[in-house]
Order: sequence, then C-alpha cells, then structure tokens
Amino acid sequence: MPRFFVSSETLQGTRAVLTGEQAAHAKVLRLGCGDEVTLCDGCGNDAECRVESFSSGELVLEICAVRPSGAEPKLRCSIYMGFPKADKFEHVIQKATELGAYEVVVFPCTRSVSRPDAKSLAKKLERWQKIAASAAEQSGRGRIPQVLALDSFDAAVKRAAEAEFSALFYENERTCSMASAVGSAAFETASLMTGPEGGLTEQEVQKAQDAGMAVCSLGPRILRCETAPLCALSALMYAAGELG
Amino acid sequence: MPRFFVSSETLQGTRAVLTGEQAAHAKVLRLGCGDEVTLCDGCGNDAECRVESFSSGELVLEICAVRPSGAEPKLRCSIYMGFPKADKFEHVIQKATELGAYEVVVFPCTRSVSRPDAKSLAKKLERWQKIAASAAEQSGRGRIPQVLALDSFDAAVKRAAEAEFSALFYENERTCSMASAVGSAAFETASLMTGPEGGLTEQEVQKAQDAGMAVCSLGPRILRCETAPLCALSALMYAAGELG
Repeated sequence: MPRFFVSSETLQGTRAVLTGEQAAHAKVLRLGCGDEVTLCDGCGNDAECRVESFSSGELVLEICAVRPSGAEPKLRCSIYMGFPKADKFEHVIQKATELGAYEVVVFPCTRSVSRPDAKSLAKKLERWQKIAASAAEQSGRGRIPQVLALDSFDAAVKRAAEAEFSALFYENERTCSMASAVGSAAFETASLMTGPEGGLTEQEVQKAQDAGMAVCSLGPRILRCETAPLCALSALMYAAGELG
Repeated sequence: MPRFFVSSETLQGTRAVLTGEQAAHAKVLRLGCGDEVTLCDGCGNDAECRVESFSSGELVLEICAVRPSGAEPKLRCSIYMGFPKADKFEHVIQKATELGAYEVVVFPCTRSVSRPDAKSLAKKLERWQKIAASAAEQSGRGRIPQVLALDSFDAAVKRAAEAEFSALFYENERTCSMASAVGSAAFETASLMTGPEGGLTEQEVQKAQDAGMAVCSLGPRILRCETAPLCALSALMYAAGELG
C-alpha cells in the first residue's frame, strides 16, 4: 500500500490533503478514488486512508483509522559510521533504514578520506535525510531515522557510549565476538560503531574502550566499510528478536 | 596482505609463479622483493609467501608456510535468490561472499522480470564468478563461493531443501520468525531462499513448504530483494557463532 509521511497535525482530523511532491508521486502511482493509502506521522502512528478526490494537484484523503505502526522495532539501534566515500554512506543510510535503524550518525575519523566542509555538509544532510525518508516509506517504517553529522570522533564516542549497549567493531579484535558482547540483548538502546574505508586507528579504538564501549569482532572475514554496519545491524536485530 | 587464488598444485612446491592478470594486479599493488603475499588454493588452504623476484611480468614467490585458512565459516550457507535485476544480483554476490556464503544460486521465479537466455547466461555466469573471486580475495576468504544458475523454481527448492536447515523468507508470513526456525543453529549446512523484486507467489511458497523448507519472516519491515538475503545471512552467521 502506498505510504506517505505527513505532520502529526495532519492526522488529527477526519480528512487529509496531500499537495506538491507527494501529490505528484501519487499521480505517478496512478492513485484514484477509493484507493487505500497509509499516512504516517513519522512518530510511530499510521492512518489508514481512502482517496476521496484527486484533482488540480490535490489528493484529498478520508482518514478511516489511526493506529500505532507495527513496523517499528522496540530496540532503538543507532548506527555510527566514520565518514566513508559519499556513495557508500548513501547505501548505508538506505539499507540501515530498511533494516530498522533508529538513526544514522556520521563523523570524521583519522583515516576518513572524505570530509565535507560545513557548507557542503548542510546540503548533503538534506540529501541524506531524503534518502532515509524514501527508504522509510518503501519499507513501511513508522518513523524516519534521523541522519546526523558530528564534528569529531570524540563527540561520536561520547554520544554512542550513552546507549545501554554500545559496541565498536574492529577488524584487528580477535578475542571478543559480537555475540559475547551482545549476550541476551536485554537492552532497549544500542549504538553500533564502524570505521571508514581505511579502518580505525588503535588510538580511536582505545578511546572507545575507555568510554565504556565493547570492542568486538564481526569474524575473520574482512568486511567492506559499507558492509560491516549492515551486518552488525542485521545480527543485532536478530538477537533482539526483531526479525519476525 | 595481498591475496591471490591459485590452483592446488601451485602450493605443492617451494616456489610459485604468478603471471598474466595476477602479475598485472601485483604491479598495481607495487609489490617488490621481500613483500609478503598470501596464496590461497580456493579449497581452504593459505600459503604465506614472500616475493623473490618480479620482472618481465612474472612474480616469483617463495612459499614459506601452508596452513588452513582461518576465514572460512564452519557453516556452509547457500544463498538461493530468484532472478532479480542484474545490478542487484551482482551486489548480492559481492556482499554474500564477504559475509561468508558457501555458494550463491539464482533461479527464475514467476515474478522474475529478468530471465537471461542460455547464451547470455553463460557470459553472465563468467562475470558473476569473477565478482565472487574478487570479493573472496578482498575479504580474505579461503575459498571462492560458486555462483550457480538453475533452470526452474522447482529445481531450486529441491536442491535447497537438501541442506540440514532450509528456510524461505516470505513477506506475508506473520507467524514464524527466523529465530524460531533457526533455533540453536545446530546444523552444518543451510539454504536461505528469497524472491525477486516482485516477491514470491503463494504457490511458490507452498511448494517450498511441501519440500520441507521453513517459511519464515524477517520482521514487519519490507526489505528490498537485495537486502533480504544479506540480512538473513548476517543473522544466521551470528546465530551460528561465525561473527567473531
């Protein structure tokens, strides 16, 4: 069923009107009178709606029922990723959103090749947020994960370590497996941190450990920087009982 | 450390010689005398080598020690995927190889839009096998997963169901979670099956069930066809203790 994110106020009444880009998208989908549409307030509420009329670029919907979205995981899992090249980060945003990430946080690492300046970062954040919104609509999420950029590795570690469970994945770690760090997954907030293409430095790993993060391995295979966070997220969602 | 796949015979002696594409690749990597290289026989054995000489397109290596590869998972997990569009399947081959898949099998489904004919399939298989080889080298795998194409959905189900654990992931399944199907993951061979862009038909799901495959869900979020097999593989590797 087509899905559109709207403001919370839009779901207050008995009717909702979509215009602009959303109406244009509805036209592409060939929506017509009587068709069913889901409106989502991005805060976890879904409204079942029916198309009442569609003309002059205005899609008028009757709101039939509002209920909590069934697609939001209980586990709030944040992805923390050292700035990779742009296309890789866009891939991670899209996939992490599908897989149920709560938010996606990016930050500069010692070995980050790509470091957008403040001006281009603002533009990029806008673009990244759109990718998250589009993936959230397609995958039926109840909210759009926020994409955040932090100024430094230190700021990222500080924020990540605030979650009940926080782990940094390091390819040179040999002792601690992800499973031993996760245990029974009895937590409601989690941070999963991975590095850029060139990997993390020993100093960065030490900082994460000092901040209380678990430093663990994803196995003996070397994962690309865009594969690691999605592998870790899939595994944690499994461990937390969020995969069905 | 650079890694090259060679024949088993190459590892029998005390010296190995790389030529052609592999020597060209070694040149790109600027390998020189004394540098360390790993040769891998693709059957799970790694040889630690040292560059003895490199001239006229011939890289001569001294074989210092041969040992079993530490990067091969014990679990042999096959990915079965209904023909998706070409770029998506290539993505799945690359990522599934990194994540430790044993083989990647593709087959036509009722809703497959892309179905290469016999002639183009032979070319594609060659290309796909190269993608697997390259990903295996990059991720440090001990063997190259084979990429196979089967003629029909029925043939795929028959083959997939021969594994000790076999599951088909279906977006309309609401009762059986992946975790309940996997249990304690006490098996050595597994098949994970997912559909093409348009999903699987009810008839296809029924056939898989009749063949003894578990039909299960990956959660309430709708995953793209290229995301589902990688999510399931990551989760199963986690469950089987293969992530670190």
